[in-house]
Amino acid sequence: MTQYHPLTEPEAIEFARTIPNLFQPGADLVSREIGDGNLNLVFHIQDRHSSASVILKQALPYAKVVGESWPLTLDRARIESEVLQLQGKLCPTLVPSVYTYVPHLSLTVMEDLSDHMIMRKGLMEGNQYPLFADHISTFLAHTLYYTSDLGMNQQDKKWQVKQFINPELCKITEDLIFDDPYTNSPNNSFEEAIRDEAEALWSDSQLHLEVARLRHGFLTNAQALLHGDLHTGSIFITAQSTKVIDPEFAYYGPMGFDIGAVVGNLLLNFAGQEGLSETDEKRAEFRQYLLETIREVWTGFEVKFRSLWSSHSTDRISRTPGFQDMYLKQLLQDTFGYAGCKMVRRVVGLAHVADLDKIADTASRERAQRIALAIGKALIKHNRQAASIDELLDIAKATIS
Amino acid sequence: MTQYHPLTEPEAIEFARTIPNLFQPGADLVSREIGDGNLNLVFHIQDRHSSASVILKQALPYAKVVGESWPLTLDRARIESEVLQLQGKLCPTLVPSVYTYVPHLSLTVMEDLSDHMIMRKGLMEGNQYPLFADHISTFLAHTLYYTSDLGMNQQDKKWQVKQFINPELCKITEDLIFDDPYTNSPNNSFEEAIRDEAEALWSDSQLHLEVARLRHGFLTNAQALLHGDLHTGSIFITAQSTKVIDPEFAYYGPMGFDIGAVVGNLLLNFAGQEGLSETDEKRAEFRQYLLETIREVWTGFEVKFRSLWSSHSTDRISRTPGFQDMYLKQLLQDTFGYAGCKMVRRVVGLAHVADLDKIADTASRERAQRIALAIGKALIKHNRQAASIDELLDIAKATIS
Repeated sequence: MTQYHPLTEPEAIEFARTIPNLFQPGADLVSREIGDGNLNLVFHIQDRHSSASVILKQALPYAKVVGESWPLTLDRARIESEVLQLQGKLCPTLVPSVYTYVPHLSLTVMEDLSDHMIMRKGLMEGNQYPLFADHISTFLAHTLYYTSDLGMNQQDKKWQVKQFINPELCKITEDLIFDDPYTNSPNNSFEEAIRDEAEALWSDSQLHLEVARLRHGFLTNAQALLHGDLHTGSIFITAQSTKVIDPEFAYYGPMGFDIGAVVGNLLLNFAGQEGLSETDEKRAEFRQYLLETIREVWTGFEVKFRSLWSSHSTDRISRTPGFQDMYLKQLLQDTFGYAGCKMVRRVVGLAHVADLDKIADTASRERAQRIALAIGKALIKHNRQAASIDELLDIAKATIS
Repeated sequence: MTQYHPLTEPEAIEFARTIPNLFQPGADLVSREIGDGNLNLVFHIQDRHSSASVILKQALPYAKVVGESWPLTLDRARIESEVLQLQGKLCPTLVPSVYTYVPHLSLTVMEDLSDHMIMRKGLMEGNQYPLFADHISTFLAHTLYYTSDLGMNQQDKKWQVKQFINPELCKITEDLIFDDPYTNSPNNSFEEAIRDEAEALWSDSQLHLEVARLRHGFLTNAQALLHGDLHTGSIFITAQSTKVIDPEFAYYGPMGFDIGAVVGNLLLNFAGQEGLSETDEKRAEFRQYLLETIREVWTGFEVKFRSLWSSHSTDRISRTPGFQDMYLKQLLQDTFGYAGCKMVRRVVGLAHVADLDKIADTASRERAQRIALAIGKALIKHNRQAASIDELLDIAKATIS
């Protein structure tokens, strides 16, 4: 195993045996490949006779999306493992532990989180996660603050920018989020029922101007080390625990992009409630839960971020009166804008979300998609005027009233 | 010469002989070390019997400023030579030609520009340069446009950001421009006569908020590959020719920082006219020339930048109606802000400019310094409201009326 090649399951098992202090010698190990096969191999390796287990995640040198295959840098595996370790220092309980990284195999060996569920699935099953807002707002506040010029030495930060230059993965975001949905691109994918909505996106000049601005921020604003793909499919969750996974899109960008990803994906589930065969009352209750969660994510983030800033910062200039308020206002506005972009692309762009696509009833699915688009567009158009998270909740509520 | 060491003059001459196609074999070469000795050795090597000559610029592993000495990365020589070559491709007539770079000696071999004069000196001698505004606005438009996400592939740009990470030189800017002048720092240096002005800077909270914002832009806004130190001492000039030199501070930052450097330094000379033993009429005329030059620098930049954008850009999103106007408005505002920062620090900070300091008459010097500070502060405070370059000229004129 001295040269890169995709591991077979027997090889993965043999490799797992070599990890110190994990399995007993001669343990009866079994492997299950649980990756989606598009970007990575993910081996879940378990001892049949004990609770010991581990995850081996190996990057593949290509990406497969809707049948297409294109080469994709293996360097993303280095980035992912280094980011996980960095985030692990900043919020140890909120990411999987990395045991080791094997550069020549692009292989990260990490904690098994099989007792957790992908959050998107959990929300689709109607689960509520009362601790989630507290957890994710801690994750956002700590990872964004401590990797920014506010929370670390400004020169060290520049070396870190260099460490996490990630052009290939950024290009996927730039194309799929900020470009394709707003033009008649062959990458787009939407149902004929909402063709009117898709075509309206292609000619909405007010929307285009805001998206051009937000894309420019994504391209230039090296504010903090982002997760870069923080949707509810990148979050493992239980009632007690939240773990953020898969930071292969990590790079230095605008903080609001990560916060907006969380908010936008909660709102996609909000739209998706249209499809559940629940009573109106139950549906309204779950939507209320989602909106309250969004409010707590933002307010929790703001309180924690301000607290880190006020208590930790040794940077004299960042303590300038008024600067913190100005900074947080910009973050809120960016959060509106990027949340909106994240929503729009999940309805008409290449990659969709199950919250909407898995709605079986055609009419309900169409309603849900129209709600998601209505919220997304309104957030994008309102982004530069936003002054309070309440405005975001009002925008969401207005689409279902 | 296999290991780094500061060259002696005989070594510089021997090295110069090895440059292909420059000197005749056995040429009678003479070397003059013309660097200021603070950061670099600069050998001017000339054939006594022909017009052939060359510049050898070697970085020293330390910086000396007012007697202090601290270590400084030699990597800045790589950055400088690579930036000169890149700028040479974008505007070949506006930078010295680089013949070669010798990594292990941190040595750049380049075109001799001894027939040019440092522009700051030229302005102090009362020279007018009718072609300067056209030249420098071309330099600004081409170097900033073609290194930005507008003028190059967005993925290649990210690799270029990585290539020009420059923490040590950026720290000098961050400290001397955005920090020290606004607090009672031991690095500051100002005359007792203007202590009232210096102390006022330390407690001006409106100013501090704007400077914190502008510094944040410098720290995070990876908009284009900047020269990074584009004052009139980094410009070699004749009536016909303009050459921008010394880009060792180059890094990816806000475009307005470079444009503001040019504008701010022209305004420092504007303030410095106070000290010339000219008639009021002559002084007014030169000041008018400087203001007209500033106007032409901005309008020339704007016209050329918009023209490149409209004719060259293959990026669909950047053609979104309204985006170009919004972008240029922000550049103008940044230009106001950074021009102001560049001025303030040259009066009360560590490194001054001869335009002010060389004024022999004490009262005139004090008046000039107060004018420079008045313009600088007004530009910083007005930056977010700026809508036209005329406002900048009005601010300057108001300080002498």
